[in-house]
Amino acid sequence: MLAEIPALDKTATTAIQQRIDLKTKPAGALGKLEALALQLALIQNKSPLSLNKPVLLIFAGDHGINVHGVSIAPSAVTQQMVRNFLTGGAAANCFCRSNGIELAVIDAGILSALPDAPGLIQQSLGSGTADFSQRPAMTLAQVDAGLALGRHIARQHILAGCDLLLLGEMGIANTSSAAALLAAATGLPVETCVGRGTGISDTQFELKLSLIKQALERPYAKDPVSILAEFGGFELVQLCGAILGAAALQTPVLIDGFIVSVAALLACQIAPNCRDYLIFAHQGAEAGHKAVLDALNAIPLLDLALRLGEGTGAALAVPLLRAAISFYNDMASFADAGVTQVVDSSD
Amino acid sequence: MLAEIPALDKTATTAIQQRIDLKTKPAGALGKLEALALQLALIQNKSPLSLNKPVLLIFAGDHGINVHGVSIAPSAVTQQMVRNFLTGGAAANCFCRSNGIELAVIDAGILSALPDAPGLIQQSLGSGTADFSQRPAMTLAQVDAGLALGRHIARQHILAGCDLLLLGEMGIANTSSAAALLAAATGLPVETCVGRGTGISDTQFELKLSLIKQALERPYAKDPVSILAEFGGFELVQLCGAILGAAALQTPVLIDGFIVSVAALLACQIAPNCRDYLIFAHQGAEAGHKAVLDALNAIPLLDLALRLGEGTGAALAVPLLRAAISFYNDMASFADAGVTQVVDSSD
Repeated sequence: MLAEIPALDKTATTAIQQRIDLKTKPAGALGKLEALALQLALIQNKSPLSLNKPVLLIFAGDHGINVHGVSIAPSAVTQQMVRNFLTGGAAANCFCRSNGIELAVIDAGILSALPDAPGLIQQSLGSGTADFSQRPAMTLAQVDAGLALGRHIARQHILAGCDLLLLGEMGIANTSSAAALLAAATGLPVETCVGRGTGISDTQFELKLSLIKQALERPYAKDPVSILAEFGGFELVQLCGAILGAAALQTPVLIDGFIVSVAALLACQIAPNCRDYLIFAHQGAEAGHKAVLDALNAIPLLDLALRLGEGTGAALAVPLLRAAISFYNDMASFADAGVTQVVDSSD
Repeated sequence: MLAEIPALDKTATTAIQQRIDLKTKPAGALGKLEALALQLALIQNKSPLSLNKPVLLIFAGDHGINVHGVSIAPSAVTQQMVRNFLTGGAAANCFCRSNGIELAVIDAGILSALPDAPGLIQQSLGSGTADFSQRPAMTLAQVDAGLALGRHIARQHILAGCDLLLLGEMGIANTSSAAALLAAATGLPVETCVGRGTGISDTQFELKLSLIKQALERPYAKDPVSILAEFGGFELVQLCGAILGAAALQTPVLIDGFIVSVAALLACQIAPNCRDYLIFAHQGAEAGHKAVLDALNAIPLLDLALRLGEGTGAALAVPLLRAAISFYNDMASFADAGVTQVVDSSD
């Protein structure tokens, strides 16, 4: 898989930056949108840039560790929320409708499978993971299968004309899994990686912390695929596969919150060239999110104190990508508009 | 004008908050968007909420103080950029197109008036202000006329069905005017209020600082209308009037960057009830912007390191308002969706 992901060709950087700098504005005055336009222009390597058929893929999975009550919600809520996505009632549905984004839900491994339904993609790896505080969450074969399934569904959408893949997730207790993955993948202290998810009590938080610490103390292989098997969630593994699949097709991926960012970190450990195709939608409120963004050297676009997941932050960031594309494609240059070009003299 | 602006009726707060809390998400998980939905629901006092015919009004004016070279650009650039807005080539045009926003430009007092053109509203208060480092920028009669003109144009759009007014500005050297207004209106140290605008050199920055300090040392009346006459710009005064006009009609106003935020501060000093109708689009890169937002107790939606003005930040924030309205109107409740309601136990 590693060999399939091309390094981003950056030879056009100077020409693209010059095009941005000749727009009728002081150099750099569009802040983060300028860096975003540069990244999109490098990835797409064409003019005009496009943003066609953006799709949010929400990967859902359940987590064995929730038998200990590390979340405010019972695991049944994962399936209930998948139903909610399918009937259009969740926050992610609202934001996708309001921003013109298609939404699909993937059963990557929830406790009880749902009947077939429009918008539901059945590619379950099992009825929830094993309790990773006691034993590996899944087998290496399940990781391999999950990476392939995630890669497949990303390819399918991209080959059908999707220019931008948005990734989101749903899985009660998956902040526990993501925190353990982050600690294992980076060596960061567990305390930096573990947060309160959607709002657990002090007692639950201490329990969550001690279960994750306990899990990290057993011997395990330190490569990213083994780490995924040890602590992963089925949705996390498929997210990782989707990122690798999109990067292989040189398609930008808009990363949502803490969970998806951890999947991105592991994808980048599997294939470092991935990183150039990733756009980070937002800084969420979950404790470990800042740590994983720092590990990825990522500057997120939004900071709205979200702590919901589902891809809500990614869906909210799409208009900023459209705006970056719009100014890159359509904004007048100094010469076009007859505006005196002034040079920033502060440097 | 003060008497015309009704206090926002907050009696529905509990009912609105409950509606938000019963949506299928942990309480508070949509962060800033929840506060935004609450504010819009209080202002509109109806269901469903709406966002019809959003309009960006860009007020343009020139500044006498620019004879000293306090900007990187000559004052002629103000008129050149107004032409650019009228032909659709500026960043504000791109973002308005990409987010479905109408745009109109107001000549509030640029150096050389332009011929009539579609989208140009002629309500000039003069050919640029006087050099406020030496004497009052304008007369009290000009302030009164400017407030009335700004109020008039806001009313006109709102009465034609605009649910949300976006405000932006163009005026070479207007960060000098805004910095002096901010210092005079708050008593903050000049150093906190003055920044580098679109990118001046150290020498220019020292000059700008000393000219503003010098201006603030002369005696002047400390009421907001007198402060506007002393240090204001024609676009700043009309912006202030537009804010007062929109608030009088209980219509939300989306405030752009440093300049418009300073106009908002003065509007709130004239009529404190204004504050409840204001939404702050973004934290810009200009030094004084944080200070004025703090003075207004404002938490901006975006932080994209913008330093362009024109209403670009306001235009970029509109999709977040649409998203807040969308989840408030359309997201399922726990009961609707058959999702187990879980209670945040962290409090």
